[in-house]
Amino acid sequence: MAKEKLSIVKIGGNVIEDKDALKTFLENFSNLEGKKILVHGGGKRATSVAAKLGIESKMVNGRRITDADTLEVITMVYGGLVNKNIVARLQALDVEAIGLTGADLNSIKSDKRPVKEIDYGFVGDVKQVAHQSIDKLIQADFSPVFCAITHDGNGQLLNTNADTIASELAIGLSKLYKIELTYCFEKNGVLMSVDNDDSVIQHMDSGTYETLKDDGVFHDGMLPKLENCFNALEQGVSRVIIGNPSVISNKEQKFTTLYL
Amino acid sequence: MAKEKLSIVKIGGNVIEDKDALKTFLENFSNLEGKKILVHGGGKRATSVAAKLGIESKMVNGRRITDADTLEVITMVYGGLVNKNIVARLQALDVEAIGLTGADLNSIKSDKRPVKEIDYGFVGDVKQVAHQSIDKLIQADFSPVFCAITHDGNGQLLNTNADTIASELAIGLSKLYKIELTYCFEKNGVLMSVDNDDSVIQHMDSGTYETLKDDGVFHDGMLPKLENCFNALEQGVSRVIIGNPSVISNKEQKFTTLYL
Repeated sequence: MAKEKLSIVKIGGNVIEDKDALKTFLENFSNLEGKKILVHGGGKRATSVAAKLGIESKMVNGRRITDADTLEVITMVYGGLVNKNIVARLQALDVEAIGLTGADLNSIKSDKRPVKEIDYGFVGDVKQVAHQSIDKLIQADFSPVFCAITHDGNGQLLNTNADTIASELAIGLSKLYKIELTYCFEKNGVLMSVDNDDSVIQHMDSGTYETLKDDGVFHDGMLPKLENCFNALEQGVSRVIIGNPSVISNKEQKFTTLYL
Repeated sequence: MAKEKLSIVKIGGNVIEDKDALKTFLENFSNLEGKKILVHGGGKRATSVAAKLGIESKMVNGRRITDADTLEVITMVYGGLVNKNIVARLQALDVEAIGLTGADLNSIKSDKRPVKEIDYGFVGDVKQVAHQSIDKLIQADFSPVFCAITHDGNGQLLNTNADTIASELAIGLSKLYKIELTYCFEKNGVLMSVDNDDSVIQHMDSGTYETLKDDGVFHDGMLPKLENCFNALEQGVSRVIIGNPSVISNKEQKFTTLYL
């Protein structure tokens, strides 16, 4: 039997912070036909709340360290403020949204990242997605809204990259559904030239990706996102799209579709 | 057909802030047989976070006013920090917990309290409990964990008293279940003398309640709690108990049982 379609859509922090972009996105998401999951990042709000609370952002080699205080702020801002406001706004648009972290229903279990050269603190690398528990929500026609928090199964919440959460959910649920995974961010897609918003690469297979990567086309933020995307395709996800917050409306001409 | 039992347990802010009391409570809750829901208040953490963020607590006639900034803090602390940590800890105790506000699944809809003598701000009076949506979670053997936040259905989150949320959930779900509603707080039960923790009133019907109320036995915090309890009993809830965090272990000798 052909698998039913499930859309998993991830929005980045820049979309969340842009009032108009978020409004447009949520309306488009509410109009998206069929079963669907939203995954959201946090944006700069966590940094500003941390600063106000006198918690210093600790960076090592350009990477943020999640100490205990920072984890509390992330839990407050991503799990509370951002997640629950998105849920309330989706409900107003008649989406039966339910806001989740990976701790809820034990849906996403992680391992705290081992300390090697750098101690990243309370950061989790995804170990297990409870696709059957999540599917009970989907089967009830609920739309899960995930923030970028997981847990270790022993009572500890962990900070996890939202792009990774989206791709791991996509991989886990591809056992049950035909998954269309979409990453929405502030650009129109993957760009050949980061300064030219019209230079969208409309189709990219894994071979082209490797070539362009070697040519140094992709900047630091795009590389892990693309690694997540190709990993998802390799592990059973049907289609991966990268575009702006309107790409899920099917009205956008420009966006990037990735292939193996 | 006899209705199945559903336990609804509310813990107050003083239990949440007492590390040992919370640990004991969560262990007892995890051992509680059958279907169950947890409702938690927020405690003083919201006040301390607000103070650090430079948000003044506004009081009018001894009642807290929930302005927009205060609502943000409540959403962060109750909906994020407190709720998701409780969920993670219950998961570690093998409870399939799922943390919710009233916005999730549109589970508890409120009306923003009308402005009369006092403008309470973003405070919601419960209008509707979506007992059928909540029951889909219960039927899947999930244990909902509610914080003290509801929504108006138009995208606005609202601050709502946790005692009221517990009693309204109990009333709504009494259509489907035999409800045992338990309020856990820092005392051993309803006391004849507020300074004597041994003066627990073990059984109290509505007649006795009215008499003792007229005699001025109950202090300000206890009165609305008891009003909630008798309201729940009048509207179909089977049993209401008030006691300390061990009362749900069935090992406590002293607690208060309320009757109509």
